[in-house]
Amino acid sequence: VKRRELSVEEYQEGVLAGDRVVLAQAITLVESNALRHQDKAQELLRRLLPRCRDAIRIGVTGVPGAGKSTLIEALGTRLCDRGHRVAVLAVDPSSRVTGGSILGDKTRMESLSRHSNAFIRPSPSGGVLGGVARKSRETMLLCEAAGFDVILVETVGVGQSEVTVRSMVDFFMLVTITGAGDDLQGIKKGIMELTDLIVVNKADGANLIRANATRADYEQVLHYLQPATEGWLTGARTCSATTGNGIDELWQVVEQFKRVTRESGVFTRRRQKQNLEWVYTLVREQLEKNFFSHPAVKTAIPAMEKGVMEGTIAPTMAALQLLKRYSVE
Amino acid sequence: VKRRELSVEEYQEGVLAGDRVVLAQAITLVESNALRHQDKAQELLRRLLPRCRDAIRIGVTGVPGAGKSTLIEALGTRLCDRGHRVAVLAVDPSSRVTGGSILGDKTRMESLSRHSNAFIRPSPSGGVLGGVARKSRETMLLCEAAGFDVILVETVGVGQSEVTVRSMVDFFMLVTITGAGDDLQGIKKGIMELTDLIVVNKADGANLIRANATRADYEQVLHYLQPATEGWLTGARTCSATTGNGIDELWQVVEQFKRVTRESGVFTRRRQKQNLEWVYTLVREQLEKNFFSHPAVKTAIPAMEKGVMEGTIAPTMAALQLLKRYSVE
Repeated sequence: VKRRELSVEEYQEGVLAGDRVVLAQAITLVESNALRHQDKAQELLRRLLPRCRDAIRIGVTGVPGAGKSTLIEALGTRLCDRGHRVAVLAVDPSSRVTGGSILGDKTRMESLSRHSNAFIRPSPSGGVLGGVARKSRETMLLCEAAGFDVILVETVGVGQSEVTVRSMVDFFMLVTITGAGDDLQGIKKGIMELTDLIVVNKADGANLIRANATRADYEQVLHYLQPATEGWLTGARTCSATTGNGIDELWQVVEQFKRVTRESGVFTRRRQKQNLEWVYTLVREQLEKNFFSHPAVKTAIPAMEKGVMEGTIAPTMAALQLLKRYSVE
Repeated sequence: VKRRELSVEEYQEGVLAGDRVVLAQAITLVESNALRHQDKAQELLRRLLPRCRDAIRIGVTGVPGAGKSTLIEALGTRLCDRGHRVAVLAVDPSSRVTGGSILGDKTRMESLSRHSNAFIRPSPSGGVLGGVARKSRETMLLCEAAGFDVILVETVGVGQSEVTVRSMVDFFMLVTITGAGDDLQGIKKGIMELTDLIVVNKADGANLIRANATRADYEQVLHYLQPATEGWLTGARTCSATTGNGIDELWQVVEQFKRVTRESGVFTRRRQKQNLEWVYTLVREQLEKNFFSHPAVKTAIPAMEKGVMEGTIAPTMAALQLLKRYSVE
């Protein structure tokens, strides 16, 4: 049975009513690359923007196996039980390559996904790098219009995904685990300095002592790094997503962060800055997309790259030639 | 007396002959924004590219007061004495704001600037951010064609300048000093992970013990960070640019770096990658320049920014509107 396409009004009403089926359809609309859908999506977003609730946006990153999903489920379920409405999204710029390893399997968050206050959206399947990020931002807005007040954005620590997610959330959390040897060496360049809180997960059973030691190591290194958020001292905590120990404390950190940064104005200023950055990111992406999808440019790329790699053509000249091909359409 | 403008042939011959007056004029040509000069500069670079010597490009960064200039002078003079030909350039993306604080006063490198094997070029005066970087890369090529085999690029630790310089050099050096309190806390985000060597300068007199302690602190933190160059362990050294202690050892590190990375192929691969990145940086810069200098776009910016900051216009819509203004010329 082919589903009838909803009108903008129907999307609008459904989302504002918190209807999760309509919300999911609206996200699909926003993710669509069809020009007709894009116009409709823009109109929908324009109407919904003034109705967005005041949600807190939390980015969650960490290496595969650190237990991000389990942690999100544990935290999300507690928040839902207390009356929060929690949306879980995934940003995975690498999904094109890896086939989408995060949130792909909804059963990984089984209990949370059944909760009436929760909404889980796996990462878009066939995404372009910039595209996924753009859609994630729009998806956040849709969720906020639908009344979700906690947005959890999961990302895997691959490529530029942390920087992308950092640029669209209020609070950024790094989930790690303790292992054999030098734990901190597995952490990606610069990632700690994007972070508002480091969480050493799986602090339970025989692992407890080591987890506490790892936490102390992080605290020591953090001492030498600049915090990600003005006026906020990035710290390290331990928790266990399976036993639930330390999960409430994580949320207390988030609440404290919100209080402190709202009072100082840092919260609002970051949001405004993020929105402006978003505009310019979209513009740049589109300019590049137009350029590199131009037939005359596309056909010239392989020979240009070869020449530059071999040193037979100066990079300045190569750029000039590409730009000339574009202007002579 | 108005100087006659040189022909491309005259530039070419003069630069290849190592004539420093012509080299300085060629750099001015490359830095010029006049279209006529740009075409000529491109033609000159095209001719000179195959004649570039095999130089090592070294970036030197650090906070103001760390003694970068004194260190460059001490190292540069020794290298010149041993027959190397040393060019010193400055990349200062912030010169527009600060008025150009680095290398602005040639007398700061008095003895080096008088050396027949040295060439010192202060930072371009009225630079745009991307512009200065582009010209610095071209300036490096000109110096290499003129027979300089050591290129030292000085940058102040402001904004994106370290990332820019890292993307155009083989070896990146961070110059620091020891001070009262927690020395490492003054280091900018992520800077250590761009670095191939940390130099604790001013390790002399009463400061010697503290400098060694600071060096040990750095070594410890470096242990937890990923090195900037594949197969190369970033270390920390002490030196004194005024007494000369440790300066020869710095050069030994550079030589060892060159040997190791050349053997592994990392050196060449980085150069190739840097050249390709350069092409795409130039293209993106020009696309953005064309866009944001377009009258219809320019006039729309203030109202757009106001609306986005106040939350009355969705960032996606703002981007779309700007792009539409550009396409309807």
